[in-house]
Amino acid sequence: MKNLPIGVFDSGIGGLTVLRGLLRALPGERFVYFGDTARVPYGTKSSETVLRYSREIAAFLVGSVKKPKIKMLVIACNTASAVAAKILAKELPVPVIGVVEAGAQQAAKMAPAGTIAVIATKATIKSSVYVKYLKQLAPKARVIAQACPLFVPLVEEGWSDHPVTRQVARIYLNFLAKRKPDVLILGCTHYPMIQDTIEKIVGRQTVIVDSPSAVADCVKKMVPGTIIKMVPGTISLGAQTPSSAIPRVKFFISDDPARFKQTATLFLGQPPVGAVKLTRF
Amino acid sequence: MKNLPIGVFDSGIGGLTVLRGLLRALPGERFVYFGDTARVPYGTKSSETVLRYSREIAAFLVGSVKKPKIKMLVIACNTASAVAAKILAKELPVPVIGVVEAGAQQAAKMAPAGTIAVIATKATIKSSVYVKYLKQLAPKARVIAQACPLFVPLVEEGWSDHPVTRQVARIYLNFLAKRKPDVLILGCTHYPMIQDTIEKIVGRQTVIVDSPSAVADCVKKMVPGTIIKMVPGTISLGAQTPSSAIPRVKFFISDDPARFKQTATLFLGQPPVGAVKLTRF
Repeated sequence: MKNLPIGVFDSGIGGLTVLRGLLRALPGERFVYFGDTARVPYGTKSSETVLRYSREIAAFLVGSVKKPKIKMLVIACNTASAVAAKILAKELPVPVIGVVEAGAQQAAKMAPAGTIAVIATKATIKSSVYVKYLKQLAPKARVIAQACPLFVPLVEEGWSDHPVTRQVARIYLNFLAKRKPDVLILGCTHYPMIQDTIEKIVGRQTVIVDSPSAVADCVKKMVPGTIIKMVPGTISLGAQTPSSAIPRVKFFISDDPARFKQTATLFLGQPPVGAVKLTRF
Repeated sequence: MKNLPIGVFDSGIGGLTVLRGLLRALPGERFVYFGDTARVPYGTKSSETVLRYSREIAAFLVGSVKKPKIKMLVIACNTASAVAAKILAKELPVPVIGVVEAGAQQAAKMAPAGTIAVIATKATIKSSVYVKYLKQLAPKARVIAQACPLFVPLVEEGWSDHPVTRQVARIYLNFLAKRKPDVLILGCTHYPMIQDTIEKIVGRQTVIVDSPSAVADCVKKMVPGTIIKMVPGTISLGAQTPSSAIPRVKFFISDDPARFKQTATLFLGQPPVGAVKLTRF
């Protein structure tokens, strides 16, 4: 069980920012990543549909209930995490960590009686999932939630550093910034790509909680013996060094692997090494 | 065959602008609409995946090859039209009309030796499908193509009339506007929603071709006996008048009908009347 890889799934490629954080933080672990690129995004779909997709992917990654192929499941997609994490935790034979839970835990620890802000897609904010978690974990904290639906398309347009993105960010974050939150949760996998723009608007007094580091922190607690060590600089995907001929990540996606490889580099910080396999349900 | 409905399909709800145009232009016809809301959008997916989805939906709408349930198939989604229209036309027992072909035909007729501009999603522009059609239909015309990927999310954010949308439109359309095109094809079902903003930037000398009217024109030619009559004002969906108790449109979608009904009103100009059925593949 200990030697099994950690399963990570996302609605598409945004979850690669989470995988990147896990690869950095857990140099001794192997991973299996599933990106549902044929049905992305989840943020605009109904809970029923997102739950159905999440169950299909989880079943694929876990394989046999009696002899699971992964030792843990990380849900890197905020929407899937909001909708399916608790349900899958009950149904699956392995521990389940959702980005939402991980982010809320870290924020609650940082500002148990302060002001916690969260920004995410419309679907995640509408689900109130962050607010619910934070009410449990930090009942004394004040919580502000703000949907920022245009951030994902702006990042995907390549406008991470662009006047329009700064203008949109000012519109979305103006009210939130005035409240000077102690902590701001980036509740969407794409948002770390425009962290600089966000930081400039909310100001330096606000500590930013991003999913990759929050999830790594959570995994540490749940997998005994895992050593969290932040490795600065380039992350090793395995196949590049002679000492580890087996790539550390196996990629499975539901749409064209060639397109995935192109865009994956942006989110992963380097091209994905090893096979990228097409898997359809 | 004559009494059968016309099948219309789209990746989601954008195609309702095309349906709206058809309902107006063809008061004597009935329609079956399929919106693939569980897998929307198609514009970011590979051709293989879009073709697979299109075939599934076409098979559902046509039913039996020997005894088709529709008399014609209209592909209201530009991406699906670009990828699948020619292939489905060969495979299906009914005529197939794609929005791309319809738009290109109308533009070619208007400016056979002029400058024709086309704006669409990244996938549609990358496929060069409009350019290919226009080269055949108007070999003397000059064609300019421009991808406008942020227009769809801006419309869906409800920012159709917003300073950010005007700024984004100026960035996308600046080069195109300088060329003073004779015709501009709105190559995406969402774009008619920001037609005013687009018109102000390109100027009054440019005639705008929108898919709804281009498709209605095309259907007229292909369905013998169909009378094209533009009915001003509100369109009748049938069930509202005692004389036609049967709704003129049957809606099928792949995600939550309740959500569909909410957003459909925006694109259709009025709430969808009659049953909206959930259909999964």
